[in-house]
Order: sequence, then structure tokens, then C-alpha cells
Amino acid sequence: MAKDMTLLWGPGSPPCWRVQIILEEKNLQGYNQKLFSFEKMEHKSKEVLAMNPRGQLPAFKHGNNIVNESCAAVLYLERLYQSQGTKLVPDNPAELAVMYQRMLESAPLGMKMGDVIYYNMKVPEGERHDSALKRNRENLKDEVKMWEGYMPGSGCFLAGKTFTLADVVIYPAIAYLFRHGLSEEHYPKLAAYYNCLKDRPSIKATWPQVWKDTPGQDVLKNL
Amino acid sequence: MAKDMTLLWGPGSPPCWRVQIILEEKNLQGYNQKLFSFEKMEHKSKEVLAMNPRGQLPAFKHGNNIVNESCAAVLYLERLYQSQGTKLVPDNPAELAVMYQRMLESAPLGMKMGDVIYYNMKVPEGERHDSALKRNRENLKDEVKMWEGYMPGSGCFLAGKTFTLADVVIYPAIAYLFRHGLSEEHYPKLAAYYNCLKDRPSIKATWPQVWKDTPGQDVLKNL
Repeated sequence: MAKDMTLLWGPGSPPCWRVQIILEEKNLQGYNQKLFSFEKMEHKSKEVLAMNPRGQLPAFKHGNNIVNESCAAVLYLERLYQSQGTKLVPDNPAELAVMYQRMLESAPLGMKMGDVIYYNMKVPEGERHDSALKRNRENLKDEVKMWEGYMPGSGCFLAGKTFTLADVVIYPAIAYLFRHGLSEEHYPKLAAYYNCLKDRPSIKATWPQVWKDTPGQDVLKNL
Repeated sequence: MAKDMTLLWGPGSPPCWRVQIILEEKNLQGYNQKLFSFEKMEHKSKEVLAMNPRGQLPAFKHGNNIVNESCAAVLYLERLYQSQGTKLVPDNPAELAVMYQRMLESAPLGMKMGDVIYYNMKVPEGERHDSALKRNRENLKDEVKMWEGYMPGSGCFLAGKTFTLADVVIYPAIAYLFRHGLSEEHYPKLAAYYNCLKDRPSIKATWPQVWKDTPGQDVLKNL
């Protein structure tokens, strides 16, 4: 039981989901948690800001140690609980290289997803341009094609023969793409990866409830 | 001697500099290296693209293992060479938490720096707005103020009593801010940190030659 841990999170957020997955993989269930609504702008509430001055979710605390960036929380928990639960870092240098590389490539992937899915939220009305949104979509398409190429031809794992930190970090982002309408036909390897890990216990146990309760969006349907 | 390593890099680039610093700290001198010019767009050359399909620098290779994202290369080298050269990861969980958190906060810092310094390069002429550039400057100012608050009151290190991965990753970004005109008077703690580590051997040995040879810019003078 991880009673000295607290996770503030928002529904369907890939960065939040990463932390939930690693907590499951490391047998750290029983942590304190609280759900905030992005729609109601609760991530800008005093309670969140007190833990994460950026006003973003997740906000994660272990004792007095605060680690809010999702990849930082994942690295922190792996280091502290190396020998507990699933071993998430391979010994093999070739697999290690791919694991860290994919993990950190979550940043450009996430940014390009946001530049399309949240374009109207991020850009004030008077500054919007069809040409910019079109370019953002092209950039995201190139990015997603790159990830299609990264996917394992067979097997469920991004970096070698086992589930690693790369999967903890990247799976939620891939699931988010499909939730927003990405075509399984256009991206068969991404779809295979998505479906292959759906029933992994850590992922199934933390699958966003809001995704079960509401229909997905189609903004990426034609990507 | 690290003859099985190759670093492709560009002058004055914080992500490239990170990899150079950790290679020094881990006594991995003697690696193969090649300098490319950003001005001449050589980061989009075939030679770079062959190693880094994103057409970005650094591109880093160890044997057949390619790790191009700078934080990924830093994590990879630390893990493989834990017991060689400087110990860069603290054992203390509180320091570990700060180290990973700061390290991963390099992403928002770098993004906001780029949104100001490279605004005209990133945004096509017909899509530029004074209001956007002004907002970007405000966002960068808030970000830099946050980092001013993160700085140690005394001492040279971001995460505890020793030089860690957080310093490897963040120092080049802070130096880049001052290179682009940030005021040492407005940000005294950032300036103290900047000056405190200037003569550390790994940093001094890899200080961008172009910064020694040419005057800095003043784009951030009034931030």
C-alpha cells in the first residue's frame, strides 16, 4: 500500500495515465488520488497549483517529494522501486537505447498532437490561420507515420522483448490518437500495438472511465 | 577512449552541449565527432538524416545504438556508465525527485525560449502577430522567473549537494539565456548559478567556441 503517495489527475490525459500505469506495475496500489476536471478548468485550482505551480496534471507527491512531469515521475518511481513489481528497464544496451529514445520522443509527439487537437484552445481567435492548422496536421501526420515505423512488427513492446518504460510512456499517447479518431486501417502497426496491450492488467485497471462512458472524437479520422 | 561513440552536433546548441558535458563527466573523451552548421541548414543534410530522421542535432551513436534526444542520451550514458567518472544520480530520494523534475522541465523551458528567440523562423510571415510574440515573451518571462525561484540560494547545484543530471541538462539552457541577453541583474540567482559552474572542467572544456569568438545577442535584454 502506497499511503505516502498522492496523485492528482485528470480524465483521459496521457501524462496522468503514465503515472497510473507505473504505479500499477510497481505494485504501488492504494495511493491517495483525486480526479480533477479539465473542462471545469480545475487544473488551475488552488489545490493543484499548490502542488504543481504550472497548473498542470498530473501532480504527484511521494512523502514530501514532488515530481509533476510525467516522465520524471516514471523515472523516479522506477529508480526507487527497481526491484519491486515489473522490471521496467532492460539490461541490454541496444534495448536501453531504444527505450530512452522513444520515451523522450513522447515530447514532440505530444506537442504535435496538441497543436492539432487543441488548436482553437491554444490560439486566440484573431491569430488563427487555416494555413497554420493545415501545416500542424501535416506535421502530425509525418510524426504519426514515424511512429508507425517504430512499432514492432510482432509482439507488444516498443523496446525489445519486455514491457518497459517506453511502453509506460508511449502507450497512453497512442491510445489517445485512436480515441481521437486515428484510423486503424491507415496505421495497422500502431493499431496492432494499441490492441495488443489493451488487456495488460496495469493498463486495463487504469483505462480512462470517461472513454468507456462517452463516444470518441473524429478529429484525426482523415489523418 | 570512446572510439565506438559518434556525436554529430551544432555550435551553441543546448541539447548538443548536454551530451558533450556528460561524455566529459563520464571520462568518455576521444569519441568521434563532427560539427554541422545550423545557419547552412546542415542539420537537414543526408549525413545527419541518416542518423536522426528528425533532422535535428545532436545525433548520437554508441556502437549500433542510436540515441538522439538529448535527455535520452544523457539517461542512457548515465545508466551504462554508473560507476565510471562522476556519480551523477543522488541516492537520496528527495534529491532524486528534484533532479528528474528539473531535468524534464527542460522541455517547457526550451520550448518557450524557442517561441521567442526563433519566432520569425518558426512562424511564416503571413501568420505572425505582435500579440502572439508579446504573449510568448510573457510566457518566457514567467518561465524564467520560475527557474530563478528554483535556483539554489548558495552552492552550484540544482538538486542537492552534488552535480547531477539536472545540471548536465539545465546548465546549457541557462547559459543560452544569458548568451541571448538575459540580465544578470534581473535574475541574480540564475546569474550566480551560471557563473558558479562556468569553470567546472566538463563545462569549460565544451564551452561553445562560437560564443568565445562572436558577441552575444540582446533579444532577451529586457525580459
